Amino acid sequence: MTPVLDLAGIFVFALSGALEGVRKRLDVVGMAVLAFFTAVGGGIMRDLFIGVQPAAFRDTGYLLVPVAATVIAFFWHPQVERAMPGVLVFDAAGLGLFCAVGTSKALFYGLTPMHAVFLGVCTAVGGGVIRDVLSGETPTLLYDRELYAVPAILGSTAMAMLNALDVRGFAATLSSAVLAFTFRILAMRYGWRAPLARGISGPE
Amino acid sequence: MTPVLDLAGIFVFALSGALEGVRKRLDVVGMAVLAFFTAVGGGIMRDLFIGVQPAAFRDTGYLLVPVAATVIAFFWHPQVERAMPGVLVFDAAGLGLFCAVGTSKALFYGLTPMHAVFLGVCTAVGGGVIRDVLSGETPTLLYDRELYAVPAILGSTAMAMLNALDVRGFAATLSSAVLAFTFRILAMRYGWRAPLARGISGPE
Amino acid sequence: MTPVLDLAGIFVFALSGALEGVRKRLDVVGMAVLAFFTAVGGGIMRDLFIGVQPAAFRDTGYLLVPVAATVIAFFWHPQVERAMPGVLVFDAAGLGLFCAVGTSKALFYGLTPMHAVFLGVCTAVGGGVIRDVLSGETPTLLYDRELYAVPAILGSTAMAMLNALDVRGFAATLSSAVLAFTFRILAMRYGWRAPLARGISGPE
Repeated sequence: MTPVLDLAGIFVFALSGALEGVRKRLDVVGMAVLAFFTAVGGGIMRDLFIGVQPAAFRDTGYLLVPVAATVIAFFWHPQVERAMPGVLVFDAAGLGLFCAVGTSKALFYGLTPMHAVFLGVCTAVGGGVIRDVLSGETPTLLYDRELYAVPAILGSTAMAMLNALDVRGFAATLSSAVLAFTFRILAMRYGWRAPLARGISGPE
Repeated sequence: MTPVLDLAGIFVFALSGALEGVRKRLDVVGMAVLAFFTAVGGGIMRDLFIGVQPAAFRDTGYLLVPVAATVIAFFWHPQVERAMPGVLVFDAAGLGLFCAVGTSKALFYGLTPMHAVFLGVCTAVGGGVIRDVLSGETPTLLYDRELYAVPAILGSTAMAMLNALDVRGFAATLSSAVLAFTFRILAMRYGWRAPLARGISGPE
Repeated sequence: MTPVLDLAGIFVFALSGALEGVRKRLDVVGMAVLAFFTAVGGGIMRDLFIGVQPAAFRDTGYLLVPVAATVIAFFWHPQVERAMPGVLVFDAAGLGLFCAVGTSKALFYGLTPMHAVFLGVCTAVGGGVIRDVLSGETPTLLYDRELYAVPAILGSTAMAMLNALDVRGFAATLSSAVLAFTFRILAMRYGWRAPLARGISGPE
């Protein structure tokens, strides 16, 4: 079950990367690069930080799914853009899934719970940061005040706590992912914002 | 033979990095940083993705050649700039060589042919992407529509196919590199372009 | 002794990252990301290039210290900014310490002296480069002509030479760090500049 969910998460993230490529008028190579690194960049970071070979270079699904997302965005980007509010829901699901899976993998390799939470968050948000750096922008994660890292911190922490209580496997992954997903959806719905340093007002 | 070719490829890439530093009016430290990462950044990416220590940190040639290129660009950049059309031919040769060598190394470490092709392309184009990100620009690879990744895909695929047919070593490397090189030169000569997503027109 | 100094160096670098976040009006997530990668990004690069798991993902101090720096910058950034000339002295101390420690670690893992010097410099200056790339700027290291990499090269070279003479441990680290620190302070005091390529004048 998890591998299918995993590839679904990768597909949604890859699609958002490829669409960013279309918006920036990149060529098809640029679209594919953004699709790939948005989708698997966070997992690559996690695996390098754990000290193992990135999973993305073992499993062909991690290459084929971004290619498929690029093809879809290439031909049908207006349709996908119009479906974007729906895509944001899938993106939130990918966020939840990735933070849970990332935390779990780090714990499996013996990292401390605190590092596992950190790497869970990296898995979930790292790809978007790489996408923004590659497309020549300050990562939105750093300034846009949307609660995007915060739900991932919540989901990763839940995963690490469940693991400490010996709750593992699909049940732990699913409940942590649902927690992060729900919080993310609520944050979008109600416009919750991350704080700025005391006395500072926002960029605009 | 291959090590000499390899250092020649590194020299040409390092020179292009150092010249980019001159154009951006970077100081000598900036020139050296761009020279180094343009030349060996792709190989470092490949090795990290394979899960082995980057070769650049074993062999002193990988450090000395970028230093030499920096010194040359520091004193004689006007002369090198004037020779640039010639340098583009060497760059195409480096592109061909790096994609073949990168694919071969990934296959040697047991990656799938598809991943080996991907890492061959990373080896060839990754340094230029790092150079652009470090010098504060969107990587030209992503938007400029020049066929740069495409010849590398071609050469890497040829290398992986020859490997599957048990053709290895110098003959395989040379023929794959020549294929990528030739295609790159033809693409420059005839102005072949990578496509944009359907219905999108270019940046300018 | 060294671990305490190490965490002190990380604290100063993290503080400079978090303050950069305040100056750019990033939110608290952005401040924390810059604090973390400014402080430990150079060490992460070094460890990936050596081929070992980054130390930052073993020791919880490497996570907690950047969090503490973020909290301090969040509430008291005006006070810290006013103390900045003092912070620059601590930053120079961190630079000296990091280049010595980084060189030492690379030598311990059997890298050549030349590579160890390179990785010592990476440890010292890499975090600042990552901070600048993430906050959407050309790394100041590349163009600002301040002698920042040069003191690190000096300290790292001293460390490698002492190691070749069988002088190791705290004495070697301290004397190399003091050398880099002193040179950095003198460079700031007297406005020493890195050269531009022959015939090029600076950006402004």
